[in-house]
Amino acid sequence: MTVNIAVDIGGTQLRVAVFPEKGIVPLQQAKIPTRSEGENTVDRLIKLISSVWPTDERVKAISMAAPGPLNPKTGFVFSAPNIPGWVNFPLQKIIQDHFGLPVILGNDANLAAVGEWKFGAGHGHHNLLYMTISTGIGGGVISEDRLVLGENGLATELGHVIITPGGPICGCGKRGHLEAYGSGTAIARYVLEQLQKGVPSIIPMAPPPSARDVSLAAEKGDALAIEAIQRAGTYIGYGLANYLHIFNPSIIILGGGVSRIGPLLLDPVKATMRESIMTPVYMEKLIITSAALGDDAGLLGALALAQEL
Amino acid sequence: MTVNIAVDIGGTQLRVAVFPEKGIVPLQQAKIPTRSEGENTVDRLIKLISSVWPTDERVKAISMAAPGPLNPKTGFVFSAPNIPGWVNFPLQKIIQDHFGLPVILGNDANLAAVGEWKFGAGHGHHNLLYMTISTGIGGGVISEDRLVLGENGLATELGHVIITPGGPICGCGKRGHLEAYGSGTAIARYVLEQLQKGVPSIIPMAPPPSARDVSLAAEKGDALAIEAIQRAGTYIGYGLANYLHIFNPSIIILGGGVSRIGPLLLDPVKATMRESIMTPVYMEKLIITSAALGDDAGLLGALALAQEL
Repeated sequence: MTVNIAVDIGGTQLRVAVFPEKGIVPLQQAKIPTRSEGENTVDRLIKLISSVWPTDERVKAISMAAPGPLNPKTGFVFSAPNIPGWVNFPLQKIIQDHFGLPVILGNDANLAAVGEWKFGAGHGHHNLLYMTISTGIGGGVISEDRLVLGENGLATELGHVIITPGGPICGCGKRGHLEAYGSGTAIARYVLEQLQKGVPSIIPMAPPPSARDVSLAAEKGDALAIEAIQRAGTYIGYGLANYLHIFNPSIIILGGGVSRIGPLLLDPVKATMRESIMTPVYMEKLIITSAALGDDAGLLGALALAQEL
Repeated sequence: MTVNIAVDIGGTQLRVAVFPEKGIVPLQQAKIPTRSEGENTVDRLIKLISSVWPTDERVKAISMAAPGPLNPKTGFVFSAPNIPGWVNFPLQKIIQDHFGLPVILGNDANLAAVGEWKFGAGHGHHNLLYMTISTGIGGGVISEDRLVLGENGLATELGHVIITPGGPICGCGKRGHLEAYGSGTAIARYVLEQLQKGVPSIIPMAPPPSARDVSLAAEKGDALAIEAIQRAGTYIGYGLANYLHIFNPSIIILGGGVSRIGPLLLDPVKATMRESIMTPVYMEKLIITSAALGDDAGLLGALALAQEL
């Protein structure tokens, strides 16, 4: 039997799974922390892949989803915020040289889009936009059955677009990005700022609240928490309306912890989209739905690329 | 000999040109006003095409660039602001039924992108962004050698993205779009508003100034005119930085009258882009250049699609 090995390189965990050539149910899985004292991440990654290496089956390809800006065409990671030393790092070549077989490298948010498209909520669509909203905002776009990559594989940084020049600072260091208004980090920061201004709330000021704290307070009816989430939803709606005008997808798939807050967030998202589009055609047959694959989207997207080799 | 017929349906003029199957030098050309008392535009269009119909050559296809939201896949024009009656209008079918041969319909800004890609400033590139800045802002994107169309052909409305929620009203009726900050209309409106506030300038308040008036005043050193153009350039820079993050092109081609203002506009465009990108990689090998085909870009883009049939 022939198998594919898919890898998800996360900021905290390295995950690996062995899949039969045409299947999506793993034959074997393993995970370890991304970082460990005295050992570099690439050595840990090689060790992890080796640990699940099949004894009797032929491995066709290794396909890896990794965070941060990277170029899937050259196999270089430009930088990976949570992995020391991965700056202009030839990850694909290192793994390929070590194991001596085809290795694919892709951006995790892009591959999550591919995963949802091939095996998840977007199956059968030709124009798909996937946005993940958690600590940050990322995503991927399928346009006419192809992943939009751009010249250096740096396209579809969906959270890093200016939605208000000079606005709040973003995780990337620039100002006024969608991520700085709509992410979990942005929700938590907005609440803290309002608390510091004396806005009443059941949320304590210290330790600084998380998006999860805000979500729980909103469930209890806290007015500030509700406003903070609706505000984020409104900005996400502006962003998605822009993406309707830019990509005109037939489906928008929302993933990530913040998207699971539910109608309190999604109602203003949809209302803002409806108010903001130039023609109702953009939303007439548009499906807005939740991601189906959860944390496995990136891994399964990597698998999809391996299966297409 | 076999020929193709390309048509450019403008708000003021209908243009037609007959091209040899593999050439871009027209064998014959004609143009007439788009509207005329007592005659509808589609009849005028059919008459115009008929007027250049070759007597000895076989016509392979008719390819048409038309304004306004339209669906190149179904051949319907959703609406055309300057052409009465063209609402959900089956233009492609009407022309095809009349002439009995393959007819292609495309959005004029999209086809201008194709024209510049195939025959103009973007030749040889695989990831190209074309933006036209004149009365409005439009554009088209080539991603990995394919035009980005979206599900209904409504993608890449590059001027109609929110750059500041609740900002000035746009030509499309929505608020805060890039077009409402960076177009010629926006430049002229900003100057008028400043004049009404008493800002000194050599530009008279009546009749209301045009972008051309502002450009001429800037050449004479008028401070308000210079500021207005630089302000537009800054906003266009925000928009283009966003498009680097979204499409990661290898070339940006700027067309339209406003783009021809030159360095006074383009210097702040480029400076803002440089300040706004997350990683210098987006601009390391990026070419920012002027459109090469001028008013013929749409016509030649239409021709390119006919040649590919």
